[in-house]
Amino acid sequence: MPRMTEIVADRGARLRREIRRRRIHGLLVTDPLDVGYLAGFTGEDSWLLAGAGKGCLITDFRYAEQAEAECPDFTLVVRRAGLVEAIAPVVRRKGIKRLGFDPDTTTVSLLSRLRKSLKGVRLVPVQRIVGGLRTIKDRAEQQAIRHAVGVAEEAWAAFRKNVRRGMTEGRLAAELDHQMRLAGADGPAFPTIVGVDASASKPHHHPGAKRLRRGSVLLVDFGAKVGGYVCDLTRVLFAGRIPSHARKVYSLVYEAQAAAIARVGPGAVLSEVDAAARRIIADAGFGEQFQHGLGHGIGRQVHEAPSMGPRDVKGRLEPGMIVTVEPGIYLRGRFGVRIEDDVLVTAKGHEVLTHVEKDLEMMVL
Amino acid sequence: MPRMTEIVADRGARLRREIRRRRIHGLLVTDPLDVGYLAGFTGEDSWLLAGAGKGCLITDFRYAEQAEAECPDFTLVVRRAGLVEAIAPVVRRKGIKRLGFDPDTTTVSLLSRLRKSLKGVRLVPVQRIVGGLRTIKDRAEQQAIRHAVGVAEEAWAAFRKNVRRGMTEGRLAAELDHQMRLAGADGPAFPTIVGVDASASKPHHHPGAKRLRRGSVLLVDFGAKVGGYVCDLTRVLFAGRIPSHARKVYSLVYEAQAAAIARVGPGAVLSEVDAAARRIIADAGFGEQFQHGLGHGIGRQVHEAPSMGPRDVKGRLEPGMIVTVEPGIYLRGRFGVRIEDDVLVTAKGHEVLTHVEKDLEMMVL
Repeated sequence: MPRMTEIVADRGARLRREIRRRRIHGLLVTDPLDVGYLAGFTGEDSWLLAGAGKGCLITDFRYAEQAEAECPDFTLVVRRAGLVEAIAPVVRRKGIKRLGFDPDTTTVSLLSRLRKSLKGVRLVPVQRIVGGLRTIKDRAEQQAIRHAVGVAEEAWAAFRKNVRRGMTEGRLAAELDHQMRLAGADGPAFPTIVGVDASASKPHHHPGAKRLRRGSVLLVDFGAKVGGYVCDLTRVLFAGRIPSHARKVYSLVYEAQAAAIARVGPGAVLSEVDAAARRIIADAGFGEQFQHGLGHGIGRQVHEAPSMGPRDVKGRLEPGMIVTVEPGIYLRGRFGVRIEDDVLVTAKGHEVLTHVEKDLEMMVL
Repeated sequence: MPRMTEIVADRGARLRREIRRRRIHGLLVTDPLDVGYLAGFTGEDSWLLAGAGKGCLITDFRYAEQAEAECPDFTLVVRRAGLVEAIAPVVRRKGIKRLGFDPDTTTVSLLSRLRKSLKGVRLVPVQRIVGGLRTIKDRAEQQAIRHAVGVAEEAWAAFRKNVRRGMTEGRLAAELDHQMRLAGADGPAFPTIVGVDASASKPHHHPGAKRLRRGSVLLVDFGAKVGGYVCDLTRVLFAGRIPSHARKVYSLVYEAQAAAIARVGPGAVLSEVDAAARRIIADAGFGEQFQHGLGHGIGRQVHEAPSMGPRDVKGRLEPGMIVTVEPGIYLRGRFGVRIEDDVLVTAKGHEVLTHVEKDLEMMVL
């Protein structure tokens, strides 16, 4: 495993190539997730100025000590005034005349303040420079996501032991979140979804007061966030027995997911991976009950590029991408089934990173 | 207590006055916190178009049912395409020629896409319309924050009972967060800060592996998020005994906080409330060890306007504002003390909303 400084150096080299390609002299990075990715910095309220020599991290007294330890290869500027004011002398010193910024993460107000502070500097909108780099997970990132998966899986095993009938969705979500923390998570990757019966038919249900009963279908969509990286998985459990209609729906979703996972590999068109699952569900007459896309990238955020839906006809999977594969069937007012795993695209095919049991007979509580 | 529809109607009336005053025909509201505030909607990925008649909520199939129940007085548009595309026909139908947007929450990319989609409509940046309204908490909001305080206080009592020496900061934070969930919180208002001894000297410490020992100083900064509203409080506990230097520092922070709280009332200049605490700390020779502002507003977010620091010489407190009052003294490498309560500005003075014990003799574990 390379050391963090080498990893950061490699990300920096890829960034500098992009900076040259986009014909700018430097890039202002303001999104904390991007700053963390490029500098290995874990604090907040700090910006990165990349290009034109050594990268420069602009931070404040709260993070000075931490930045020194985490970012040995960056010039540190400990600001006393605001970030916009602190950046101006650095840009000037570096002689940057064309400074790129990310229009997807820069607000209209911030751009207007930067323009005032950086007179004489051309501010150039350049989309998805860092986002583009982040789509391909390097070895350190793959390891971080594997680690998050391990934490989530340990928590899931403890959670299954602690599930009791009579618990509310809210209580069940609290239990799983607590188990993730005890297993080493900094927190849940996103608000954990716990849906019992009819609640499970809403793809983004907020856990409420509905209680688990014998014969209930329990859908749980969860992930751990550890060291800045997340995982994302969904499992469906059955309390005591499997209703016969649920058995059929579960098997169908299971089959659809397997078909899609089989299609994951370098060069696969995104919409075609989606179609592999969707076709099976639609052919069985449930096309209208699967209204969301098949999956999405994960990394520092739970929703990253690429998106894998029916409309994503242009993009292709590349080695290093990590995507969720999560088909579902939602029967309004009754129940829903979604099965979700995280899959790494490898040079030759794919590797499923999540190993939590999902065979139907294993899902009975 | 007025019903939610009346509260939303009142917020709408205040918004329409602002829309007229800013000489626009309508306002596009894209920030989910603002949409929730104005429409009573608790879902995501939905925008509000206010002004020019009945308010219009643009949402999608996932939230259609929920929006119908939560927003009876709004026209609902269940979009099939993207938000930017869905908004255009609504703006045209309403005959809006000057449409306001918030430059603080609108990205450069979004504005550019809106411009393309809304040809012939003048997009006018109007700062802090909804943010301004949200600074003054109405009765429903005050009640929501009181409720969050109640949840946090119940959790704190349970947490104190469960603290054991030998626990790490991370474990302690997990315990408090779990107690907040069990007491009814949707989650922590922000990542809970737990600092033992030297860690407590960093105002934004991330809980780590440091363990609580006899004689340790334990700083805990936490808050509950319930129904979209938060509280924010800090307490310092002592494991077994109070080190004599910590006793002196604690008393000083306690005195400084009391002096600042006494100044909270309608018309008080923000920086003067800060100065009331800062003067006491500086006079005792700890001015350099109190480097952050005295406090900030709370509401849907943990940091809202107004900010109460030494530079906030222009603004004044107004009835309905709810602010934190949180002076601190941080002795690098040794320990830190911060005491934080949430205070409502009333017509005649103030009301402290948080009632967790803070007298020194009560803080020994």
